[in-house]
Amino acid sequence: MKVVKFGGSSLASGVQFNKVANIILSDSERKIVVVSAPGKRYSDDIKTTDLLITLAQAIIEDGDGKKALEAVLQRFADIVSDLTLDNTLLTNIDQELGKLMSQYKNDAPRLMDALMASGENQNAKLMAAYLSKRGKEATYVSPEEAGLLVTDDPGNARILPEAYEKLRKLKQKSGILVIPGFFGVSKQGHIVTFPRGGSDITGSIVAAGAEAEVYENFTDVDSVYSVNPQLVNSPKEMKEITYREMRELAYSGFSVFHDEALQPVVTKKIPVCVKNTNHPEAEGTRIVAERSQNGCPVVGIASDKGFLSINITKYLMNKEVGFGRHLLEILEDECISFEHTPSGIDNISIILRDHQLRNGKEERILERIRTELKVEDVQVERDLAMVMVVGEGMCRTVGIASKATEALAEAGVNIKMINQGSSEVSMMFGVDAKHADLAVQSLYYKYFTPVNHI
Amino acid sequence: MKVVKFGGSSLASGVQFNKVANIILSDSERKIVVVSAPGKRYSDDIKTTDLLITLAQAIIEDGDGKKALEAVLQRFADIVSDLTLDNTLLTNIDQELGKLMSQYKNDAPRLMDALMASGENQNAKLMAAYLSKRGKEATYVSPEEAGLLVTDDPGNARILPEAYEKLRKLKQKSGILVIPGFFGVSKQGHIVTFPRGGSDITGSIVAAGAEAEVYENFTDVDSVYSVNPQLVNSPKEMKEITYREMRELAYSGFSVFHDEALQPVVTKKIPVCVKNTNHPEAEGTRIVAERSQNGCPVVGIASDKGFLSINITKYLMNKEVGFGRHLLEILEDECISFEHTPSGIDNISIILRDHQLRNGKEERILERIRTELKVEDVQVERDLAMVMVVGEGMCRTVGIASKATEALAEAGVNIKMINQGSSEVSMMFGVDAKHADLAVQSLYYKYFTPVNHI
Repeated sequence: MKVVKFGGSSLASGVQFNKVANIILSDSERKIVVVSAPGKRYSDDIKTTDLLITLAQAIIEDGDGKKALEAVLQRFADIVSDLTLDNTLLTNIDQELGKLMSQYKNDAPRLMDALMASGENQNAKLMAAYLSKRGKEATYVSPEEAGLLVTDDPGNARILPEAYEKLRKLKQKSGILVIPGFFGVSKQGHIVTFPRGGSDITGSIVAAGAEAEVYENFTDVDSVYSVNPQLVNSPKEMKEITYREMRELAYSGFSVFHDEALQPVVTKKIPVCVKNTNHPEAEGTRIVAERSQNGCPVVGIASDKGFLSINITKYLMNKEVGFGRHLLEILEDECISFEHTPSGIDNISIILRDHQLRNGKEERILERIRTELKVEDVQVERDLAMVMVVGEGMCRTVGIASKATEALAEAGVNIKMINQGSSEVSMMFGVDAKHADLAVQSLYYKYFTPVNHI
Repeated sequence: MKVVKFGGSSLASGVQFNKVANIILSDSERKIVVVSAPGKRYSDDIKTTDLLITLAQAIIEDGDGKKALEAVLQRFADIVSDLTLDNTLLTNIDQELGKLMSQYKNDAPRLMDALMASGENQNAKLMAAYLSKRGKEATYVSPEEAGLLVTDDPGNARILPEAYEKLRKLKQKSGILVIPGFFGVSKQGHIVTFPRGGSDITGSIVAAGAEAEVYENFTDVDSVYSVNPQLVNSPKEMKEITYREMRELAYSGFSVFHDEALQPVVTKKIPVCVKNTNHPEAEGTRIVAERSQNGCPVVGIASDKGFLSINITKYLMNKEVGFGRHLLEILEDECISFEHTPSGIDNISIILRDHQLRNGKEERILERIRTELKVEDVQVERDLAMVMVVGEGMCRTVGIASKATEALAEAGVNIKMINQGSSEVSMMFGVDAKHADLAVQSLYYKYFTPVNHI
């Protein structure tokens, strides 16, 4: 049994619905379908979720969302019309949105959550109707019926452990089940959305709960690539990578999966297959617990910008028991999470995402470091990027670091930081943000292009 | 004005005293002389300080130190005889040791400190007498007279800030001043020794206090070498290095200076010159605040063994505010100081000196990490060595890391950890202890041997 999730661009129009239905109907193992809201049909189109956010904001700000509501309804109307579905579906959508708007009109966070979730929710109903029209038994299953019980934290739902018990029974239902992604239901009965990337989270939870053999994630690319395709021509497709590799790549700029989206399937060791709705014959990328290793252990290169470093110097720091703890305590008091802490003998740096040092936090932190830790020097260095080389087993391979540093040297990129040693699957380089793309390109060509010696 | 310090091997015999006197008398700027106790005359000789420790232990254990005392007196007698000095000097040494033995007989730590310090103390008197005999005005100045006021912590003296006021007046005294190294006097009037390497500390404090233009440190090598001479044939001599470079090298295995010995001269930016008593014409190595940079920025390669790594894995660790602080708190509770903490996204390693995890500390720490931090995995990896490449400005030089990793790859050394980014003067590689020497050799040849392209 497969759980199949389709992203927004796969469900943006009648034409896309038709492709999706073909995919579902072509494999009888595809029993549970998780859908996103209708996405963009062309590059400057607006996603339904964004139309719904505009609607919610209009209501929250001046009480009138008529124009925004029309735009939302038009998106669904286009799909209903393209697929010649029953017009009562549209009337129902209008009524349900109206109900939510009046129910939550005095509760802005709930209104936002309920309206945002409607994109997925109504799209699931359309998909169930369309599959039925194509002659297949198919039922819309609401997150409540499915058992997607979550915490009551608007915009930041977490699945509750008891949800899994109910999800396990899903596969006993007959026919194809269509479940909307992106949200669950709290014990208090409210619609609560997952953090962004939420339909992937739903798919992953449902696949884990229903104990699927595979979790298929359909999007609009043939494969996950070894490097950002905007930086390199025809980058290598990744056929098979491990969860750990995907996680490191996702962390550092690969937008395929949200950080936490994979956790449920990782725990159950359910393979994930990333495929293309517009080209379902392509093999796609399999994400698995363990992969066979042959050839170069490096599978991907990624980068992420927006880091800064707090550089601290104090003579004999390394002999001062409690120095590091006290330093991290100062950060904790300001709710700062840090990424790395490279250290010398008399110095330590704290690398963190720079958006965290706002609203006077920077001044307060530096002042406390100066006075409480009696350091000789503390400086903030901005505009750093982290470049990551990822691959299982690479840290046991002699010469991997050498290739990476050679590539960066050849590109004239100054390495400000190297972090290797804790993760077995990655090696990280801190560089100036302005050098990040060049660094990624140079590393990619070093690992993935056979060099011709003349 | 120069402060000149002579090490134990430079003062081991009459012949050595003669060389030292020649050095002092050849330069009228050499006004303040700091001396060690008589060291080894041949490879299996015993240092006077070790004879004195044996004497102290004999008294502490069974009350009779006659044989040990004779051995100590014989060392001084040999020097007095070689130099045909006045025999009353010897009688005085005998009397003073007797006085200390009776004064501190019921106070083991004080007895140990007072007797250990006698090697330097009596040697200073002999040197003053010998310089006088050579026709130069020379006076023994006790640490008390000099103003070397220290904390009253036997074996672990720290200089008190008020000492510097008095030391500043030293240069007003006429003639050459000979001060014993290794100890000071507490406000309570006790002799208190510095930690090991203590004569270097005295020299450095006196040079800083008396505001010397140079602090000359005479030992038995022509120079500080770029690498351990036991690992490489005719290693490159370092002509000029910075304090920071010296500190990084000293930390990781260079035995020239004790960790903390340089601090006083560093603060006052007084240049240090390391020279050879047996070959004073050699230029030696100058240790300065800033050096001119030309050619390869790398000045030295060092390594140190005896490290272990605690490797910890927990999913989404990097988003958990307070995780790092809690981890370091557990170490602090056991009084563990750590060296480095390389981290991935979901993992962190703590590198520390392995002697710290004794007496059940390892079990307690691992148990607390498991239960309090709810980690997925925690492992201890032993027998690690840290290999350090040192040089001012190297971290701003593109390609330095590349050369290092290339050297290690060519030698087949697997890099377990790379730490670069906080210190501007060093790059550190964690390797298996059994590969440490090979790593150092390979790095040395890569940076210091010109390659012939055929």
